Amino acid sequence: MEQELKQANFAFIGFGKVARAFARLLINRRKWFIRKYGVEWNITGIATNKHGISIDPRGLPIEKILRSWKAHSSLNNFHNGPACDSHADFIRQCGADVLFEMSLLDLSGEPAASHIHEALRAGLHVITTNKGPVATHFRRLSRLARQRDVKFLYEGVVMDGAPVFNLFRNTLPSTHIRSLRGILNSTTNYILTQMEQGASFETALEYTRKKGIAEADPRLDLEGWDSAAKLSILIQALMGGSVKPDEIERHGISEDIGRKVRAAVRRDRRLRRVARAYRQGGRVIGKVELQELEIFDPLASIRGLSNILVLNTDTMQELAIIENNPSVEQTAFALFSDLVSLM
Amino acid sequence: MEQELKQANFAFIGFGKVARAFARLLINRRKWFIRKYGVEWNITGIATNKHGISIDPRGLPIEKILRSWKAHSSLNNFHNGPACDSHADFIRQCGADVLFEMSLLDLSGEPAASHIHEALRAGLHVITTNKGPVATHFRRLSRLARQRDVKFLYEGVVMDGAPVFNLFRNTLPSTHIRSLRGILNSTTNYILTQMEQGASFETALEYTRKKGIAEADPRLDLEGWDSAAKLSILIQALMGGSVKPDEIERHGISEDIGRKVRAAVRRDRRLRRVARAYRQGGRVIGKVELQELEIFDPLASIRGLSNILVLNTDTMQELAIIENNPSVEQTAFALFSDLVSLM
Repeated sequence: MEQELKQANFAFIGFGKVARAFARLLINRRKWFIRKYGVEWNITGIATNKHGISIDPRGLPIEKILRSWKAHSSLNNFHNGPACDSHADFIRQCGADVLFEMSLLDLSGEPAASHIHEALRAGLHVITTNKGPVATHFRRLSRLARQRDVKFLYEGVVMDGAPVFNLFRNTLPSTHIRSLRGILNSTTNYILTQMEQGASFETALEYTRKKGIAEADPRLDLEGWDSAAKLSILIQALMGGSVKPDEIERHGISEDIGRKVRAAVRRDRRLRRVARAYRQGGRVIGKVELQELEIFDPLASIRGLSNILVLNTDTMQELAIIENNPSVEQTAFALFSDLVSLM
Repeated sequence: MEQELKQANFAFIGFGKVARAFARLLINRRKWFIRKYGVEWNITGIATNKHGISIDPRGLPIEKILRSWKAHSSLNNFHNGPACDSHADFIRQCGADVLFEMSLLDLSGEPAASHIHEALRAGLHVITTNKGPVATHFRRLSRLARQRDVKFLYEGVVMDGAPVFNLFRNTLPSTHIRSLRGILNSTTNYILTQMEQGASFETALEYTRKKGIAEADPRLDLEGWDSAAKLSILIQALMGGSVKPDEIERHGISEDIGRKVRAAVRRDRRLRRVARAYRQGGRVIGKVELQELEIFDPLASIRGLSNILVLNTDTMQELAIIENNPSVEQTAFALFSDLVSLM
């Protein structure tokens, strides 16, 4: 048996909460990978901005690293490979088959886009949870992956681990998406639905900060950039459109939203920020806008941190998927399900 | 190109609305099958109870049959093959690679279970929309399919074409379902939600009859047998349990439900009939019961003919899928997506 096992080597860029949750999930499913796919994995490299870089061709002691991880920990102590001056160096020398790009979101997409480009060019599969590079460089990176005969996967960029791209790819054959709409940003939806119940804007926002749900810069959530980036990816990956985040009309929300929230409730309706895309004259249009919804709209029933995506299709008419109160574990599962699709 | 095409032969048992919608979808995607899989298909046999039997090894003229189809049409005119005395004869002689079992629901599972058994034994893949045999003979038929190295697929038995089994199989790797709950019967949900808005029980039921949503015998819907059969399949296919429909506690609904519906609305809640399964002491328990739900429960937002299934999992926590106002086209799509999974 032993000798039939295939070896798979993984490298991480970023070692934040999501990456560590993903590492724990990998460890938890170690035997499952062996049993189901005959695959034994190692993490041969981790590169971060603030915690150093570490490569070990025989596999890093990931259990030990996780056990002792603290806010000020450094990976350099575990380094046991060639010297790396940059993330580009790291990608070329980490000896991995799959690169997991989990660095922090920057809407320009950099430096994550360069990491992904470098890795695909070097023949690595790339799996990312980073919206920026996928939204901004979707076509270029997808084309490069095809040319190099490797996969570029990004299930985690919309609705965390809820199957969106895998749903479309693996369960809706020969399906044309006419339009879609959803609630894709947990922070603003949490704020709107907490305000419905009497909480203040600031208290609700603070909670999403503490839970690590809000982006590092919460303006990305409040001004609709996060929703616009996700919508841009949905348009490019599911509808064949080519709308970039900055081409999407956005309604922001701010402290003065309370009046509108309460007015909607008085009318027995609910205020939600809806991301939607539709086709018009051969083009796809994307909008992120405040809408008053009737109470029985499935989007109105989405409270707290939950997300929903409704697809209007030619084969299934309307189909919706709801993710209930996600946390980092769900984003980690997105990386995991993309990884499994390579097996 | 021509000579590289593979030939796939299909046989139908049943030629009702779903089967005809499926045939239309197949015709519509004829070029798609050739382009994507290099597969050219033929329907080499159709067997019915009231419209005769027809076999043609070179393929039946399905476009012509559909064009001229009427309530009293007979298939016998198109027969151009060996004589068939029974459906068992038909299965052995139809020359098909895939049998589509679409005969009418009987909760005993017969004669559909015998058709499926016969076909699997003869080495055909079987795809069905028929709840009876799947609920009642799940283990036996699944085992037989494995032994014969063919597939036994049934996406259409729960929530029509909305991916349920394919969702679990293809997008939720290494996932354990702790519990699930849903609204799985369109007829009763339509009645409950129409009564909320002032309609009478009888008017609402009549509408589902006219739309062809109600089962041929509507007691199967009203007394909860349809929900119980679906729940039994979910328990067996997704949770590894072994609960048969008659082991599921059921609450029926009847004309006197109006009082409860209105009482729930007065409390700003909603009455729904919920099918749910949970684990208890190593066993899985299934129940179909009337529940008053708070208005923000996603199940409460499901109106009309729509369905919802909420999965509680170890990897994704809560994940829900909603099918909005299904019709026969969605059930036809279930057959189609199962077929594509064989390619």
